[in-house]
Amino acid sequence: MAGEAREKCAVAGIVGYDENLPAAGLMYESLFAMQHRGAEATGMVTQKSDGSLGAHRELGLIIDVFREEAAEKLVGSIAVGHNRYSTSGLKDKHMQPYVDEAVGFAMGHNGNLPITSYLDARLSKSNVITSAVNDSEKMGIAIAQEIRNGHDLPAAIELAFPLFKGAFSCVAMHGDTLVGFRDSKGVRPLALGEFDGGRIFASETCALDIVGAKYEREVSPGEMVILTPDGSIDSKQINSGEEKLDIFEFVYFARHDSYLYGRRVNEVRRNLGRQLAEQHPPIVDDLDNVLVVPIPDTSVPAAEGYAETYKLRHRQGIIKNRYIGRTFMQPSQLQRQQQLRRKHAVIDEALAELSEDGKTVVKNYDVILIDDSIVRGNTIPNLVLQVKAAGARSVTVLIASPPVRFPDFYGIDTPSQNELVAANITPEKFRKSLKHCEYLGYLSLDRMVKATGMPADKFNLSCFNGEYPIGIGSRKAEIYTPVSMEYID
Amino acid sequence: MAGEAREKCAVAGIVGYDENLPAAGLMYESLFAMQHRGAEATGMVTQKSDGSLGAHRELGLIIDVFREEAAEKLVGSIAVGHNRYSTSGLKDKHMQPYVDEAVGFAMGHNGNLPITSYLDARLSKSNVITSAVNDSEKMGIAIAQEIRNGHDLPAAIELAFPLFKGAFSCVAMHGDTLVGFRDSKGVRPLALGEFDGGRIFASETCALDIVGAKYEREVSPGEMVILTPDGSIDSKQINSGEEKLDIFEFVYFARHDSYLYGRRVNEVRRNLGRQLAEQHPPIVDDLDNVLVVPIPDTSVPAAEGYAETYKLRHRQGIIKNRYIGRTFMQPSQLQRQQQLRRKHAVIDEALAELSEDGKTVVKNYDVILIDDSIVRGNTIPNLVLQVKAAGARSVTVLIASPPVRFPDFYGIDTPSQNELVAANITPEKFRKSLKHCEYLGYLSLDRMVKATGMPADKFNLSCFNGEYPIGIGSRKAEIYTPVSMEYID
Amino acid sequence: MAGEAREKCAVAGIVGYDENLPAAGLMYESLFAMQHRGAEATGMVTQKSDGSLGAHRELGLIIDVFREEAAEKLVGSIAVGHNRYSTSGLKDKHMQPYVDEAVGFAMGHNGNLPITSYLDARLSKSNVITSAVNDSEKMGIAIAQEIRNGHDLPAAIELAFPLFKGAFSCVAMHGDTLVGFRDSKGVRPLALGEFDGGRIFASETCALDIVGAKYEREVSPGEMVILTPDGSIDSKQINSGEEKLDIFEFVYFARHDSYLYGRRVNEVRRNLGRQLAEQHPPIVDDLDNVLVVPIPDTSVPAAEGYAETYKLRHRQGIIKNRYIGRTFMQPSQLQRQQQLRRKHAVIDEALAELSEDGKTVVKNYDVILIDDSIVRGNTIPNLVLQVKAAGARSVTVLIASPPVRFPDFYGIDTPSQNELVAANITPEKFRKSLKHCEYLGYLSLDRMVKATGMPADKFNLSCFNGEYPIGIGSRKAEIYTPVSMEYID
Amino acid sequence: MAGEAREKCAVAGIVGYDENLPAAGLMYESLFAMQHRGAEATGMVTQKSDGSLGAHRELGLIIDVFREEAAEKLVGSIAVGHNRYSTSGLKDKHMQPYVDEAVGFAMGHNGNLPITSYLDARLSKSNVITSAVNDSEKMGIAIAQEIRNGHDLPAAIELAFPLFKGAFSCVAMHGDTLVGFRDSKGVRPLALGEFDGGRIFASETCALDIVGAKYEREVSPGEMVILTPDGSIDSKQINSGEEKLDIFEFVYFARHDSYLYGRRVNEVRRNLGRQLAEQHPPIVDDLDNVLVVPIPDTSVPAAEGYAETYKLRHRQGIIKNRYIGRTFMQPSQLQRQQQLRRKHAVIDEALAELSEDGKTVVKNYDVILIDDSIVRGNTIPNLVLQVKAAGARSVTVLIASPPVRFPDFYGIDTPSQNELVAANITPEKFRKSLKHCEYLGYLSLDRMVKATGMPADKFNLSCFNGEYPIGIGSRKAEIYTPVSMEYID
Repeated sequence: MAGEAREKCAVAGIVGYDENLPAAGLMYESLFAMQHRGAEATGMVTQKSDGSLGAHRELGLIIDVFREEAAEKLVGSIAVGHNRYSTSGLKDKHMQPYVDEAVGFAMGHNGNLPITSYLDARLSKSNVITSAVNDSEKMGIAIAQEIRNGHDLPAAIELAFPLFKGAFSCVAMHGDTLVGFRDSKGVRPLALGEFDGGRIFASETCALDIVGAKYEREVSPGEMVILTPDGSIDSKQINSGEEKLDIFEFVYFARHDSYLYGRRVNEVRRNLGRQLAEQHPPIVDDLDNVLVVPIPDTSVPAAEGYAETYKLRHRQGIIKNRYIGRTFMQPSQLQRQQQLRRKHAVIDEALAELSEDGKTVVKNYDVILIDDSIVRGNTIPNLVLQVKAAGARSVTVLIASPPVRFPDFYGIDTPSQNELVAANITPEKFRKSLKHCEYLGYLSLDRMVKATGMPADKFNLSCFNGEYPIGIGSRKAEIYTPVSMEYID
Repeated sequence: MAGEAREKCAVAGIVGYDENLPAAGLMYESLFAMQHRGAEATGMVTQKSDGSLGAHRELGLIIDVFREEAAEKLVGSIAVGHNRYSTSGLKDKHMQPYVDEAVGFAMGHNGNLPITSYLDARLSKSNVITSAVNDSEKMGIAIAQEIRNGHDLPAAIELAFPLFKGAFSCVAMHGDTLVGFRDSKGVRPLALGEFDGGRIFASETCALDIVGAKYEREVSPGEMVILTPDGSIDSKQINSGEEKLDIFEFVYFARHDSYLYGRRVNEVRRNLGRQLAEQHPPIVDDLDNVLVVPIPDTSVPAAEGYAETYKLRHRQGIIKNRYIGRTFMQPSQLQRQQQLRRKHAVIDEALAELSEDGKTVVKNYDVILIDDSIVRGNTIPNLVLQVKAAGARSVTVLIASPPVRFPDFYGIDTPSQNELVAANITPEKFRKSLKHCEYLGYLSLDRMVKATGMPADKFNLSCFNGEYPIGIGSRKAEIYTPVSMEYID
Repeated sequence: MAGEAREKCAVAGIVGYDENLPAAGLMYESLFAMQHRGAEATGMVTQKSDGSLGAHRELGLIIDVFREEAAEKLVGSIAVGHNRYSTSGLKDKHMQPYVDEAVGFAMGHNGNLPITSYLDARLSKSNVITSAVNDSEKMGIAIAQEIRNGHDLPAAIELAFPLFKGAFSCVAMHGDTLVGFRDSKGVRPLALGEFDGGRIFASETCALDIVGAKYEREVSPGEMVILTPDGSIDSKQINSGEEKLDIFEFVYFARHDSYLYGRRVNEVRRNLGRQLAEQHPPIVDDLDNVLVVPIPDTSVPAAEGYAETYKLRHRQGIIKNRYIGRTFMQPSQLQRQQQLRRKHAVIDEALAELSEDGKTVVKNYDVILIDDSIVRGNTIPNLVLQVKAAGARSVTVLIASPPVRFPDFYGIDTPSQNELVAANITPEKFRKSLKHCEYLGYLSLDRMVKATGMPADKFNLSCFNGEYPIGIGSRKAEIYTPVSMEYID
Repeated sequence: MAGEAREKCAVAGIVGYDENLPAAGLMYESLFAMQHRGAEATGMVTQKSDGSLGAHRELGLIIDVFREEAAEKLVGSIAVGHNRYSTSGLKDKHMQPYVDEAVGFAMGHNGNLPITSYLDARLSKSNVITSAVNDSEKMGIAIAQEIRNGHDLPAAIELAFPLFKGAFSCVAMHGDTLVGFRDSKGVRPLALGEFDGGRIFASETCALDIVGAKYEREVSPGEMVILTPDGSIDSKQINSGEEKLDIFEFVYFARHDSYLYGRRVNEVRRNLGRQLAEQHPPIVDDLDNVLVVPIPDTSVPAAEGYAETYKLRHRQGIIKNRYIGRTFMQPSQLQRQQQLRRKHAVIDEALAELSEDGKTVVKNYDVILIDDSIVRGNTIPNLVLQVKAAGARSVTVLIASPPVRFPDFYGIDTPSQNELVAANITPEKFRKSLKHCEYLGYLSLDRMVKATGMPADKFNLSCFNGEYPIGIGSRKAEIYTPVSMEYID
């Protein structure tokens, strides 16, 4: 996908067995490790032994937000944290974690609720101005309400749970209790680990590694895992349902070194490359003239898998600027394109072989570009053009996932279907629009699933096939009749 | 009192009849006019037509807190605001107004609740961590709870009102309603005014003047006044009780140009000076040799009243530094003393008459220093010393109120009795400790009351006589047996 | 003048005898004491024992600019500081003191140079972009240039001095030397004092008092006083000239408690009131019906002097808002007027006598308003109106200085002549424009001078009589033929 | 080198042919592209058409420093900029570019001057406190001095040039002239390019690409290239000398996509890998069991070159955290190590082959780790340990450059020789200290040079062989007798 903004948020929670454990320091490391899931805002809330909270939430990179002066406030051995991928125009409202200082409750939410009518109805009874709060806040308010009504945290979550219609992996704290819970399909991940001195919940296992925690298991769909400082761990199955992890976690969201369903993401991605190799072998016979080039960073293992299958050369022919971040001015569509340009630089010399003195081209390769996915399709065209200009004899574009033809309702709730290139033109038309692309191949749905080693029914595949495992209610109307799907395989 | 820190907070509320009225601009002016009541933190909350809120609250002077960037957030035609005199160690918690964004409720509170046991009991039932919130927040949480339970703002206030045990003048908003209400004794003031385009509540009438509002009346003790954007005004007497305005409002807190009980504060203060003149005439016969000098700013009218009675000279012989504010370093007891030093400069030449060329002293006056009150007694000694050193033939100190011998429980909840000089040594001992003071006179309680033109039972006089009109519960224990009171009259 | 913006800057310099003396702490106190001379920007520069500098300069009040974090940089036992009254549009350029870190030179300048052609010519030779720097910076650059050329600080100042055409009181430091110097007429003040551990230069003696320094003397016109850490004090008369102190220092700029020409400013101001009393006695016979009201703060002693002469009542019938400062939005002409409005509140009850119950007016006074000066004339009209509305039987306006008919070229270089009300209409016309003013009287030039106890030739009186003691070159063209002066006496 | 802090600074200069060209926007892009050379501070200075300057310099990442509010100041069509790798304890002094606002001069310097005695002597004559300024500032002051003396920029640079003893690539501006110049050996790079509307100097060509500039040539050693807004380009050879580019630019500093000596850095690095392959073939015979793993980011092309030589598998088995940056607390030695830990994550599954279901290891590879260089040697040990623990059958470490045995005096002037692991222990000892490393091989000096396609005498090789092409004066004393060099080849 190569930089098209479609990241997900991250949550984490830490409980120390000793009330002197400084949870904030570990939370900082955890959030840092998961910044790839959301880099526009971050926050954490800690809880002191008397139940009172300290909170710090701001727009910005983790390194900017958590400066020394914030450390003073973040006292306590229990903490929840959140990284956000923010949509435009958001400014400084709707910060996460949600905090209710009066009852000492805080919660981070990763996911999205396409249906909030039940929640709205309940909150309106409590006079909450539902138009002024977002879905994550509504969830927090509903749980806090039950706490106010005299329930402890697990009971409050259980009571509010039926109102939550959508995808959610959450970590909440109140009193001396830290709870992690997921929707009944487990669309977004949530792992549990133990370290010397406490336990941790995190969206990705790479956050466990960074604090030296041992991975225990994932929180099950519909399950609530309850941790307390005495080291006890309790669980309640609120709701049962088939697990439907968003396969995009494997395809694009998760970090290479995280685990999902017990599999290292990096390995699954290399498998995606191998599947791609079987489905779409090189279009030229002279394999020694083929060069595989990943569009960094996500597709590197797929490129490795592809290349290894045929013992092909593979090189980093495109590099990603390390320091990408905020721009000098407000983001606009124009600027987003500039950012994409800035994100990648094509290295001509890696795409053609030079003589020893570097002065003559002695070989022009047949280049195979590998990307993890195509969403809006605004990164590929320029890269193809540059690769061709660098002297490629031919250009093949292979995508390690099927066409993205349906919108996402369980994550950042964007983009709408008319922005998805594969929902609007056929792959062949898209290939032609690229001008210098001899071959464009998507990985089939079956092969994508096969690469994970898990059966298809273990996944939310809605972006690819339009089958939404969790009801999306009236938002169905946002989906228009797609072009025929015959081209997928 | 000459600068001893014992200021009170201020509240204000504005409702515009037109939803385009920018309430924030008027609120800014109102808070600015009342900054003498609290200069360490300020905040305001505005409400848009959809009921959602914008809030900005910070430590600092009004001019620092409300900068341009804050204006963006403060949209809407209804607003509540607050100035706080913060106690030490407060940092950035417990900001006012209290805000509950979910239900669109905000409230500012001026006063103090010596008894919170009822409130705590109720809130604990709702799992509120009462140790983590202060009394103002408890009040806000209790009202917000009733709103959540489905009540409108007036009903919510009425339901929570019986839990509030102490002194409070509050302005609250929710939906399209702005409500001002006071405790049943009316210890702290709260005025109501109307301007072209809306109505305003404010702790002092000087805040009405600044926005061009006409004073209508004070909110009555135990009354709740309900304003809406359609211009309607409604009232409900929740609780009845004799009015017991804190007489310290006249003595020290209020601005010279404010009105209380329909009397201009400046005029009452001049009356205090006249009463002082009758009770304590000059100790020398040669009135032409007497010079009356106020310790600025509060006691200037009292000095005028005293001087006019005997046609005495009165001059500003002590000046106050105009720009007093934050210090370069953290405040400490030592620094507080330095600040006092910096607050006043004695002008020698104003205290003695010079020859035309300014080179010879031709007359040494008998100086009468006038102050509004003595609380800790740490300002007077140094000033007496300096006045004597400037050549005063004699020094008289006259105080326009009786000895402060009892702590305050209805305001900022400080100082404790052992810090009150008059609770621990007799006036005569205090006079002797001043070394160069020939005469020290306090105004009697009766004369102080007489100066206001109101009967004594209209006032809370507890600081002077230990009679607390609102129960202080277990905090009675903080009062130890005072020294005999025979010296008061 | 009652708040019309026409303040002057302030400079200070401190040298400690011990290199461990923290000069920054004392400098902070000194600048704080002189903030009335300029509250829009401030800065200080300290010098370590190795000659390297630490500097901190910002827009804002002293309390805002010098926060804890700035303290770290301000190490050393020698310091110079500056308060600036900034003109509009200035932003953050042209900060003072001027600093040249490379040669370890810093200087603060109070005054203005109407002629910079000599300086420009010299600097242009050194390729300085004279259009990008202001007159203070030009002075600094010229001196630093001489230091670069190998001269020590006193020699460098002496060499550059002939280029400085205008008014200047400066404090400069380089190496272990601190130098104070004034133009040959001494238009702006500069005092020298010694405290336990060092010496201090300051624009006003009130800055000496605050650090406990004993006043030694003023730096003479055309003199340079050289201080070193070993306690030595040296002097060189660079230029000789008659002293021409700006009489406006007595009239308006200086703080009441400062000394100029050895006279306490407060005392001279009381003398101005006495002179005013002789020249303009009350217009009514019943003196017991007269009330003298100063327009605060500067004119309070003049009001005392006036009142004492006839044993008249005098009261603070107009009060000044203590917390005036920055506004919520960018300053504009409109806002400047609002600020003026906010600066003063008229207290009706102080201007008329009420019955004991405060309900009936029993006496309407003949009010005499006293102001120190009239410059633009935009404060008085509204105040006269309000005083009349408060029930004054008659309103007299007396000004403790002559009409200001000529622009200032030695200070902040503003306003231009067409903004000066007395340069454009006669006093009688001005009085009539006030509508409810029965009498308007200015103090004569002779009486003003007499009040100081000094001969007229000791003063720069240019604002009043157009005689500029220091050449103003081509800027003469800015002065148009004034209306005849017959009305002045 | 894998993240051991040893980065270099970057400079850039832009001149627009049209005075409306906003140079700041292009400069921002250029600095952004070169942030890998220094990420701790950045700054730029622009020049308006009247010659006056606007400057903005701060500690921090480019995205943090150049926020919207800074844009206002940065007006003009000529600009110079700088990225700095700052040494510890630097705080906010010594910011670059150096600025002299008075004469409108600014300059950025990349390099280091080991000998400043000539410069110091000259500046001391001008009373500059040489102990308070660093070498870059000294250069700036010396040039500004000549401008003050009446010379134009090229003349001023030429006059000051003989005082500069060391490595420097600089961009300076004054008046309408932009000048780029390099020391007589050209130790640090400096490229020149032209774009539609202006010309640009930059340390690396990747900065040319980002603004769409066409590479023209490098500034020659000892040359000064003079640009003006009329599009003219002039050149003067101040000094002649053999070019001695720091070979570390190829090895580690430059970005993969930059060009040096006309060669793409990425290509040279792949050649380094090929040379490494020839010198150190795999230690096992079964090439299908070999896995090549680069230590990112610099060594990726070397790994490609190595792998391609023998058609070996190569994978990203170690990943670099994308968001590395500031830490929550002050940096210390301990923290620096933590940062290193955070910078890299070893992916076990990439280092061993798994069964299709991911549950069994079916192959343990013989892993070859490739790094660009070893300086302190504190990154490798932990990585070797982790790779072994991941199941590697054997671990080989190959370094694409010779042992770094001598300190650098031309760049950031660090580290000292006792910090260089290869200066203190033999490679064999180092290998043994790694415990699980079967083979450690460095690339020979000859082969390293051969990879560049240039003769050895075109390079500064001092870090490897101790031959310093530019005199280092008394600093020779910092080099102690190295261990024998027999192991290098």
